[in-house]
Amino acid sequence: MKILSVNAGSSSLKFTAYEMPEEKVLMSGYIEKIGLEDSFYTLKLNGEKIKKDVLIKDHQEATEKVIEELLAYNIISDLSEIKAVGHRVVHGGDKYAASVVIDDDVIKTVEDISSLAPLHNPANLVGIRACMESFKDAVHVAIFDTAFHQTMPEVNYLYPVPYSWYEDYKIRKYGFHGTSHRYITEYVKKMLNKEDINIISCHIGSGGSITAIKDGKSYDTTMGFSPNAGIMMGTRCGDIDYSLAFYAMDKGLSQKEVDNALNKKSGLLGITGDYSDHRDIEDAMARGEEKAFLANDMYVNRIAKYIADYYVELEGKVDAIIFTAGLGENAIAFRKDVIDHLNCLGLEIDEEANDGIARYRDKQEGLISSAKSVCPIYVIPTDEEVMIARDAYEAVK
Amino acid sequence: MKILSVNAGSSSLKFTAYEMPEEKVLMSGYIEKIGLEDSFYTLKLNGEKIKKDVLIKDHQEATEKVIEELLAYNIISDLSEIKAVGHRVVHGGDKYAASVVIDDDVIKTVEDISSLAPLHNPANLVGIRACMESFKDAVHVAIFDTAFHQTMPEVNYLYPVPYSWYEDYKIRKYGFHGTSHRYITEYVKKMLNKEDINIISCHIGSGGSITAIKDGKSYDTTMGFSPNAGIMMGTRCGDIDYSLAFYAMDKGLSQKEVDNALNKKSGLLGITGDYSDHRDIEDAMARGEEKAFLANDMYVNRIAKYIADYYVELEGKVDAIIFTAGLGENAIAFRKDVIDHLNCLGLEIDEEANDGIARYRDKQEGLISSAKSVCPIYVIPTDEEVMIARDAYEAVK
Repeated sequence: MKILSVNAGSSSLKFTAYEMPEEKVLMSGYIEKIGLEDSFYTLKLNGEKIKKDVLIKDHQEATEKVIEELLAYNIISDLSEIKAVGHRVVHGGDKYAASVVIDDDVIKTVEDISSLAPLHNPANLVGIRACMESFKDAVHVAIFDTAFHQTMPEVNYLYPVPYSWYEDYKIRKYGFHGTSHRYITEYVKKMLNKEDINIISCHIGSGGSITAIKDGKSYDTTMGFSPNAGIMMGTRCGDIDYSLAFYAMDKGLSQKEVDNALNKKSGLLGITGDYSDHRDIEDAMARGEEKAFLANDMYVNRIAKYIADYYVELEGKVDAIIFTAGLGENAIAFRKDVIDHLNCLGLEIDEEANDGIARYRDKQEGLISSAKSVCPIYVIPTDEEVMIARDAYEAVK
Repeated sequence: MKILSVNAGSSSLKFTAYEMPEEKVLMSGYIEKIGLEDSFYTLKLNGEKIKKDVLIKDHQEATEKVIEELLAYNIISDLSEIKAVGHRVVHGGDKYAASVVIDDDVIKTVEDISSLAPLHNPANLVGIRACMESFKDAVHVAIFDTAFHQTMPEVNYLYPVPYSWYEDYKIRKYGFHGTSHRYITEYVKKMLNKEDINIISCHIGSGGSITAIKDGKSYDTTMGFSPNAGIMMGTRCGDIDYSLAFYAMDKGLSQKEVDNALNKKSGLLGITGDYSDHRDIEDAMARGEEKAFLANDMYVNRIAKYIADYYVELEGKVDAIIFTAGLGENAIAFRKDVIDHLNCLGLEIDEEANDGIARYRDKQEGLISSAKSVCPIYVIPTDEEVMIARDAYEAVK
C-alpha cells in the first residue's frame, strides 16, 4: 500500500512516498520557496537527486506537482493508489496524545491551538488543506510533534507560575520532537526486546531536545511551553533567566526584537557571532578561535546537565542513552565531550566505536559506550518521516 | 572592638552589634515600616526580645534610634567605640569581587549598578548614607551578595544570548546569597581542615540558591542575572521557559504584571494558591491537600536536579553537601525527600541523624548522611551578619 508522508512549512513542502508496511521509500521530494519567483524542488529516487526550477505559486500547485512527479516516475499509476497521507503538525496542545484522522473538527482544533504555535500550525494547515484537495480519496492523518509528550506527569509539565495561567492560557510544558523521540523509543524497544524501557533520548540537531522515557513513555523533556527551552541550540538560547529578556526590553528593545534575538541570534550563534552550525564550531576550534571553544563548552555543559537530570529522574534505572539527529548521529567529538562530562555517573565512551559511527563513516548506528559503562549508549538515526507514514498506514490498513 | 552589621531595606533596617574578633553578639535589632505610621522595632539582647512602637520617619531617624539603644543598654558608652559598620549591598555587578571600604567612588558605582537591582541597591544606599551621617567616625564597608560568585568561569556566567547583550547591557549570571555561600564555604574549610574544598551549598529559604564551590571558590550557582532563576521558591518561579512570560503578555498582561506574578505569585504559592511557606505546605500535605503534594514534588525535584547538575559539574569530586537557611536548617522531611531523590548518585540519608537536627531539636547542626553515602551531607546554620561583621572588622583591625 502506498502512503505519503508530508511536512508543510510556510513556504515549503517535504514529502516521502512509501510502500507500506515494508517501509520502502519510493520517492522523496522537497519543494522550496513556494510563492516566490525562484521556487524549485528536488526529488530523490533510485539513489538519484534531481533538481527542477519551476514557478510554484502556492501549496495547491505544490501538491499537484507532487502528483505529477509520482505519476511521471511511475511511483503510482493512478492517484487512488495513495491510500493515506500523514501530515506533520507541530502543536496538538493537550488535545492530542496520538495521531488522528483529520476531519473538520480536527482542523478546527488545530486552528484553535495555533496561538500556541503561530509560525507552524497555520503553515501545517495550509499543507493539509491543499493535500486534501489534491488527494481527495485518501485518508489524511495528523501526526503531532507534541503528542508523544502528553504522558508526562503534571509534576513535570506544570510550571511553578500562577496556576490560573495553566487553566486560562494553557501555559504548561508541551515538549516537541515527539515523533523523533517516539521513533527512537520504538526502535530501542525492539532492539532490547523490552516494552517498559527507561531511556534518555538525545535529539541533537540545529534544534534539540532531550527526553526522559520511563516505562516506554515520555516522562520529561527539555523543550517546554515553546521549542526555545532546555538545551542551548544553534540559534536558540534554551533555558535562560527570563528577567534578562525583560531587562533587554527595559533597555529599549521591543518584545518582538527580544524574542527574535533569543530565537535566531542566540545559542551557538549568539556566543560566536558567526557560527550556528556545530560543524563550523568544530572548524573554528581547529583554528583556535576562543569564542568557538567557549560556545562548545557552554553547549556540551548544558546537554550533559540535562542527561544527568534525567538519569537522576529515572533513579539511575536507565536501559540506554541514545544520540540521534544531526549532531547526535554525526558529531563524533561532541558525543565524546558530552559523555566525558558524565564519567562520574559511570558512563564511559568507547572511543574507537564512537569514532566509527557517522554518516560519513562505515557505520551509521551502534553502541558507543565501553563495556564498563553503567548503561549502554547508542547512536541511532532518527526517522520522523517513516513514523508519520506508519501512523497514516495504521489508520487505513 | 565593636562592629555593627547593617542590612537596610526600603522601609526596614536590621542591625547586629558584635564584639570582634570574638564574634560575640551584643545586641541585634530590626526596625520595620520606616516612614509609616505603625513603624516599630524589636531588640534582642541577653536572650530577651523587646518590642517598641515608635514613629520613625526615615532611615536617618532609624540609625539615630540604633545609637540611642546601643547607649541605653550600655553596649557602647560612646559612639566612637563603633569602629566599623558593615553594610549589606545586594548587587556589586562585576565591579566587586570582595568587600570594599565605602567612599564616594563606591557609592557612585553602587548607584550605577542600581539598574541591575532597582529594588535593592537604592534601599541599601539610603541605609549607607544614613549610617555614614550617624556613625561619622566609623569605617563603612560594603559587603555584596554577588561578590563571592565573581570567581565563576565565563562558561558558567555567560548566557547563550547575543554576546552584545553581555557587552552592552552587562547581562550575565551574577548569582546572589554570596555572603551565605561564602560563610558556609569558610565554615566547611575549617571543619574539614582543607582549603581547596569542593562543596555543594544549598541555601534553601523562602528564596533559595544552590552553589557549586570548586577549590573553595564559587564555580556555578542557580540564581542568575536576577534572583528569580534556578530553583522554585516560595513565591518565585525560578527557571521557566521565557516564552511563557511573553505569551502571558500576548494574552494582555503588562510586562510589569507578568514580572510581578513571576516574583510574588509563583513558586509554591503559584501552584497551591495558598501557601508560600514550606511549613504550610507540610501542614497541608498532612491534611491530604493534593496541590500541596504537587507543589512539594515540583519543589523537591528542581532542587534535586540542581544538586545532580553540580555533582556532575564537580566531576563527582564533592567533599560535602550542605543544607542551610530556613528550610535547609529546619525542614527535616524536605531534606530527606531531596536526598532520597539522589540515591542513585550514591547519596544516602541517615534518617535518625536527620531527624535530630533543627532549630526545635537538640542539635542545630551536624551530619545527616549515612556511613554508606558517597559524600557527607551536613546541616550548617548560615550567618550572613557575622560574615558582614568579619569583613568590616578586617578593614579596621
